[in-house]
Amino acid sequence: MTLTGVFAPLPTPFHANGELDTRRFRDALARWISTPLAGFVVLGSNGEAVFLDEEETDRAIATARESVPRGRPLIVGTGRESTRATIRATKRAGDLGADFVLVRTPGFFKSQMTNDAFVRHYSAVADASPVPVLLYNFTAVTGVNLLPAAVARLAAHPNIVGMKESGGDIAQIGDLVSGTPERFAVLAGTTSTFYAALCVGCVGGVLAPACVVPDVCVRLFELTRAGRHDEARALQAGLVPLARLLGPVYGVPGLKAALKLAGYDVGDPRSPLAPVSEEAVAALRQAIAQLEQTTVVSKQS
Amino acid sequence: MTLTGVFAPLPTPFHANGELDTRRFRDALARWISTPLAGFVVLGSNGEAVFLDEEETDRAIATARESVPRGRPLIVGTGRESTRATIRATKRAGDLGADFVLVRTPGFFKSQMTNDAFVRHYSAVADASPVPVLLYNFTAVTGVNLLPAAVARLAAHPNIVGMKESGGDIAQIGDLVSGTPERFAVLAGTTSTFYAALCVGCVGGVLAPACVVPDVCVRLFELTRAGRHDEARALQAGLVPLARLLGPVYGVPGLKAALKLAGYDVGDPRSPLAPVSEEAVAALRQAIAQLEQTTVVSKQS
Amino acid sequence: MTLTGVFAPLPTPFHANGELDTRRFRDALARWISTPLAGFVVLGSNGEAVFLDEEETDRAIATARESVPRGRPLIVGTGRESTRATIRATKRAGDLGADFVLVRTPGFFKSQMTNDAFVRHYSAVADASPVPVLLYNFTAVTGVNLLPAAVARLAAHPNIVGMKESGGDIAQIGDLVSGTPERFAVLAGTTSTFYAALCVGCVGGVLAPACVVPDVCVRLFELTRAGRHDEARALQAGLVPLARLLGPVYGVPGLKAALKLAGYDVGDPRSPLAPVSEEAVAALRQAIAQLEQTTVVSKQS
Amino acid sequence: MTLTGVFAPLPTPFHANGELDTRRFRDALARWISTPLAGFVVLGSNGEAVFLDEEETDRAIATARESVPRGRPLIVGTGRESTRATIRATKRAGDLGADFVLVRTPGFFKSQMTNDAFVRHYSAVADASPVPVLLYNFTAVTGVNLLPAAVARLAAHPNIVGMKESGGDIAQIGDLVSGTPERFAVLAGTTSTFYAALCVGCVGGVLAPACVVPDVCVRLFELTRAGRHDEARALQAGLVPLARLLGPVYGVPGLKAALKLAGYDVGDPRSPLAPVSEEAVAALRQAIAQLEQTTVVSKQS
Repeated sequence: MTLTGVFAPLPTPFHANGELDTRRFRDALARWISTPLAGFVVLGSNGEAVFLDEEETDRAIATARESVPRGRPLIVGTGRESTRATIRATKRAGDLGADFVLVRTPGFFKSQMTNDAFVRHYSAVADASPVPVLLYNFTAVTGVNLLPAAVARLAAHPNIVGMKESGGDIAQIGDLVSGTPERFAVLAGTTSTFYAALCVGCVGGVLAPACVVPDVCVRLFELTRAGRHDEARALQAGLVPLARLLGPVYGVPGLKAALKLAGYDVGDPRSPLAPVSEEAVAALRQAIAQLEQTTVVSKQS
Repeated sequence: MTLTGVFAPLPTPFHANGELDTRRFRDALARWISTPLAGFVVLGSNGEAVFLDEEETDRAIATARESVPRGRPLIVGTGRESTRATIRATKRAGDLGADFVLVRTPGFFKSQMTNDAFVRHYSAVADASPVPVLLYNFTAVTGVNLLPAAVARLAAHPNIVGMKESGGDIAQIGDLVSGTPERFAVLAGTTSTFYAALCVGCVGGVLAPACVVPDVCVRLFELTRAGRHDEARALQAGLVPLARLLGPVYGVPGLKAALKLAGYDVGDPRSPLAPVSEEAVAALRQAIAQLEQTTVVSKQS
Repeated sequence: MTLTGVFAPLPTPFHANGELDTRRFRDALARWISTPLAGFVVLGSNGEAVFLDEEETDRAIATARESVPRGRPLIVGTGRESTRATIRATKRAGDLGADFVLVRTPGFFKSQMTNDAFVRHYSAVADASPVPVLLYNFTAVTGVNLLPAAVARLAAHPNIVGMKESGGDIAQIGDLVSGTPERFAVLAGTTSTFYAALCVGCVGGVLAPACVVPDVCVRLFELTRAGRHDEARALQAGLVPLARLLGPVYGVPGLKAALKLAGYDVGDPRSPLAPVSEEAVAALRQAIAQLEQTTVVSKQS
Repeated sequence: MTLTGVFAPLPTPFHANGELDTRRFRDALARWISTPLAGFVVLGSNGEAVFLDEEETDRAIATARESVPRGRPLIVGTGRESTRATIRATKRAGDLGADFVLVRTPGFFKSQMTNDAFVRHYSAVADASPVPVLLYNFTAVTGVNLLPAAVARLAAHPNIVGMKESGGDIAQIGDLVSGTPERFAVLAGTTSTFYAALCVGCVGGVLAPACVVPDVCVRLFELTRAGRHDEARALQAGLVPLARLLGPVYGVPGLKAALKLAGYDVGDPRSPLAPVSEEAVAALRQAIAQLEQTTVVSKQS
């Protein structure tokens, strides 16, 4: 199973009463599966995984596994703060049918998270995991940085097959690519630098906008792969405004609001997150409309 | 029950096999209780709470409650990322005998943690809590800042009675004190600025070194309270080197190592944390010895 | 000549046409000298020194020297990016009658400004200076940090007699005090932590609000010195809103606007700075009025 | 005159006694001119411009102008903290034959440097400048960020023809390109992201390594322009180690040491900078050797 192309980091739908809503999830999955997306990440940051207990976690994975056809990568976020909890979550995800696990760096005790600590943690997880492991660095959220030097060491582990780098530092992404073997897949996690990340060697991306406008994201990937750089650059520029709203500006609440606009019924985020304001909805609506226009023009030319 | 004086943020002992070790915890508690400390925090940051599952959490609280005599505040950390999980943990802690709960800010979705989001979160928790609530701001760990403007609003809630501010920004602590009513207890969480924090109006502190050298920390508090500023300042300066080793430098692994040196048997931290190096142990030993010397001299003079 | 008490970092008046206005400066100096301020800093950050050429610099110093009576410290900012330019400016300031020079850290080549580089720079300046040297650390402006370890080394130089620490990190100020001999004067540069800085051992401060409300600042110093901590703390809290407006919020343009409100005619700042908005003037007016009320109440009680 | 390709930010040679050494500069210029570099920047950050007085500045410009043939862009750094000093330096540079001026953002009064302040400053400079103006953003040095929104406004000025963006934030560079008209030249200032910056629309770069290994830098530019992305990416990766040593690690002292290794005689930096250590020289030597090997291999394949 290949880790190339555009993956969507799926949100987790909740009922109005706050409970996990597997029915809504199943319905939304049916639609995502009909898009040209390469695969799916469940229980990542955008999946509000930190808000779910372990039992809910299992139900969410099982629901996704029933929906996502074999052969299309189902990646499951299983990072926890302790190594033992991460291993337990990883094993359960494997048992429930995950194709890969995506393991976010522990980050609570920031000053202690040296390269050695990361290598120890990930090696133990990879040793115990029944499925291939993807590293996951998201410094803006965790406050720690999984450096290329640590990744280069971890890439030698036979059960560590790639990583998601959610930072937009293209120099660091370049180091990750040049410091790891060909078989190690570096996936980009920041949409506003996706094109540049592909240029410096990423083989794909896990992009929040891919949940909302999967065709646009896939087209950006394909244009770049085909060496049609001018078109790719223009599409990248067109995607930036929506990407910012779904990322740093409105985050998960923005993603869920944008999905409602796009006809997906994924409910509201759990508290302390709250639904976005009417102004935010208007900004999202405009960004989507503008992007659709850009894309139409780009396809016609 | 008053929230004045020096509180110790207790570590959680583990077996060599990584399991929670309630026997070791009970033995250590017996000794901490014999010191002049005002009270105790369990399952705070130093208690590796993020590494415990909910069942272990309950056992740790029950163990502490059996040991800590009524009348001496037992404060229990119950912060989780979601409001619902925080409420559940808070209710359970109350049922298990906590006198107060200490609720760290959620911080995963940093960009969404506005003043309004914090007010919403803490108000819901305080509404549901069977015991008085303490806010808990630890920006270095969470990456978010619970600002004085939000605290001023929350201090009006009848079930929110104080806060622990773990940052060393004395201007911010001054704002917290001047922006809240007299009855609202502001506790300092940084040892290297403890004396200054008391000067600007903190009524006490939750200090990692208080686990290791409780007498010194209590004496610093009492000297300041008694207006003996020159002595307090000198003792504060003497405490700084150990405080730095137990805080930013070696963190929880350093605290556990220092406790071993002081005759407490609290085991090692859970992975990805690891026991500190021999060099670190030597540095801790020296800092403790130096501090004891300072204190002896200070008491004689 | 002693470096104790409250010093005002004087702004440099300009004509409406942007030229240095020594007449306005003389008039304002006459008034500042009539206050109980301990002494004066000219050509510091608040003096827009970075906007003056060397000839203007000399005229500003000469003007101040004519006005400030001998026996009342006149401190002149002479920091430049290169050691040679700093030495030249320092010598000229000494020739023009400066009692002390205040030498801001070079900071352009940030990554190269190690402790050793700072020690080399300041030692060369102090060797060459005809008058005693004050170190000057202002990390928010320079982006570099003159650490206590470097200061401890420099404090051994016979011609380095103190420093201005403009950061509000009270732990760092504590380290500066405890790491230097008694004769080495540590002056605070942040008003919002002035009381705390005095508590941990500063012997005075260089405070922008001292230009506008010298009596209040001097009273805060004296209350603290007299051990009247409750009153000092209350006055400190009352001073914070104005201090913030004159510091991080409106900076030098705010200081010049506040001085106009207080009846000083110091003109506008040089471009790219610009006069503050009407809203800013209103906010400054309110902060000054509020502070005066606080002070009256405090004096009556 | 076109602003396309690789430009070298030339260091300023000094005598052993610290004086400006125009003879050494002339000799070094003769060699740089013989390379395929598109043009030259004098008195930029790497030129230690902040260490020169105005008279030295003029001599350095005149020396460069005598050497650099007409038709090959000579860009002169003229940024000062005040608008008036910047205008004066700009006019003098124009009189001395600069083809373009490169105007670094003022950054001393950081909190006041809003978009409006930058627009005001640069508009006044461009109005007064006898030659076309390039904006210059170098946040790591200045601590302020000239945002794409301000640049978009300034790009409408007929005498502002481009900018140097020294940050490595590729998303920001993408915004600069997409937010300005075709005629506005965006030049990259960070070597480790040069290839990516070209991908997102930069038309060239001002790169410290171009002083030392001009052929490699020019080849990287040409490979990218020719759409030979795999070769460009490989060469970029090979260039990174040297680029880091000349940038964040050893800065200007490292650049001058590397130039000595490459046979250029440019003397030592001015104090407080100091010549690099022997270890640094060894690291530079190795990085240059390694890069030459990479390049040979790359040319053969």
